[in-house]
Amino acid sequence: MSLLAIGTIAYDDVYTPFGEVKMIEAGSCTYIAMAATQLVKPVQLVSIIGGDYNQDFLEDLKRRGADLEGVEVVPDGKSFYWAGRYHDNMMGRDTLDTQLNVLADFDPKVPSAYRKADYVMLGNLSPQVQSSVIDQLEGKPKLIALDTMNFWMDIAMEPLKKVLKRIDVLVINDEEARQLSGELSLLKAAAKIVEMGPRILIIKKGEHGALLFDGDKLFSAPALLLPTVVDPTGAGDTFAGGFMGYLAATDDVSFDNLKRAIIYGSAMASFVVEDFGTRRMQGLTKEMIDGRIQQFIDLIKVEF
Amino acid sequence: MSLLAIGTIAYDDVYTPFGEVKMIEAGSCTYIAMAATQLVKPVQLVSIIGGDYNQDFLEDLKRRGADLEGVEVVPDGKSFYWAGRYHDNMMGRDTLDTQLNVLADFDPKVPSAYRKADYVMLGNLSPQVQSSVIDQLEGKPKLIALDTMNFWMDIAMEPLKKVLKRIDVLVINDEEARQLSGELSLLKAAAKIVEMGPRILIIKKGEHGALLFDGDKLFSAPALLLPTVVDPTGAGDTFAGGFMGYLAATDDVSFDNLKRAIIYGSAMASFVVEDFGTRRMQGLTKEMIDGRIQQFIDLIKVEF
Repeated sequence: MSLLAIGTIAYDDVYTPFGEVKMIEAGSCTYIAMAATQLVKPVQLVSIIGGDYNQDFLEDLKRRGADLEGVEVVPDGKSFYWAGRYHDNMMGRDTLDTQLNVLADFDPKVPSAYRKADYVMLGNLSPQVQSSVIDQLEGKPKLIALDTMNFWMDIAMEPLKKVLKRIDVLVINDEEARQLSGELSLLKAAAKIVEMGPRILIIKKGEHGALLFDGDKLFSAPALLLPTVVDPTGAGDTFAGGFMGYLAATDDVSFDNLKRAIIYGSAMASFVVEDFGTRRMQGLTKEMIDGRIQQFIDLIKVEF
Repeated sequence: MSLLAIGTIAYDDVYTPFGEVKMIEAGSCTYIAMAATQLVKPVQLVSIIGGDYNQDFLEDLKRRGADLEGVEVVPDGKSFYWAGRYHDNMMGRDTLDTQLNVLADFDPKVPSAYRKADYVMLGNLSPQVQSSVIDQLEGKPKLIALDTMNFWMDIAMEPLKKVLKRIDVLVINDEEARQLSGELSLLKAAAKIVEMGPRILIIKKGEHGALLFDGDKLFSAPALLLPTVVDPTGAGDTFAGGFMGYLAATDDVSFDNLKRAIIYGSAMASFVVEDFGTRRMQGLTKEMIDGRIQQFIDLIKVEF
């Protein structure tokens, strides 16, 4: 089934205790695409870049199964740029610089070939831009998932609440779930958020795994214990890409399959943090992914 | 199989956003006993109290299957007392008062009838007192588990390291595992801690569940999502009591059974936090416990 993904295609400077990289290819759309194309092809991208973007990287994305027709190129513009430094304990990070550049005027145009997409992943962008993509769809997709962050809750809560009514799955982290709902208990937070619109809620808890809420059904997915996390940037987007890639590949949105999709998303995220940017994703094989899925299964297996 | 448990029998004053209680029966030994006696009898207690302790509560403990022969009573002494206030978000707490009272001179005497115990739970007390209990055992127990806290790492690291060489299972939380090992990664922390002595390590992560390390085998146990946590005091001790109670009841220390024991410990802890002190534990039935175990099983069930 077809998967449409929207988000940023960016350059990042990233500093962690394990090293630093400058002008590395990143952004939510990039991470989603690198994860999803491992599982389903094509992945139709909607984004915007400047004429300065690395052509070799874009060609590689295409070869992997990304469709770049919906990626607008502003020849004399500069691509979105973000710089951040992770704390020594890797528990938090400081943004050093953000340059919106071409993203400032991003008015996404969904190519006609994308408009009947079955699965839609709205990566982290302004709720208005996310809504505009839904406006352009023809027919009802089988599943629309949306990622957002506290930034949009701070400055665009009303547009965010509007778009939440139009989606099926919300993917946020625990802190964001608490902010969005005003509830400390994740159980109470989930109940309130589901009333805002999304039928399904995924709460990411970083090193503690993720929670899936679907009606009165609940699933707690573990996280792998990794000896070293080199660069956490893009872990959430990669999770979303793996999750939606698996759903589009299997075309099954039952609770049982949503659970499997979360394990796939978690597996993809566990890879991406092992190196800077998308480097770790570039060499993945089916055997490596299958092996990691098995690690998750073994980690939580208990028999009574 | 017989289970010996050492720890405090205390009075607590507890303030949480949900209310307050004064002079409630508490302490690590009390919580361990209330959980373990749900699963195995007798549970042989080693502790110390003053003449001021609530006789009705002690009689109830006996009826539940606790053996109090090893609980020293100092008729003109006062029982250990602790007071604490939880923060509004329940994420942390401040100690308001600690009065050691009879605990200051506690020199545990293990009754001869206890000395061949098969399972031994050394609840949170000074490492010297914990060591002294091991000294008095006859023969080698099937399993010795130990709980400790950052306080003892700060003021008694050498005695703690000594007693760690004499035990099989260490039960600590994630923060303590990081402090004890000097490692941020729990995987690296576990490797270092196992080198210190305990063959098996359990790292409790509160609302995020627990991790079990046994050789190169690893298990990630989930935590239930509770709508309301009224009083987290004693959750760790209750977990330990449920864990060791299940092991003693089943007399099986295989990895598969350790995993089941962790689910039992987690289930017991999920009950105790629903009310102040040990109140919630007093009305538990086998059906309620079985029902909660099933909730854990359902929470992590995923099929590929």
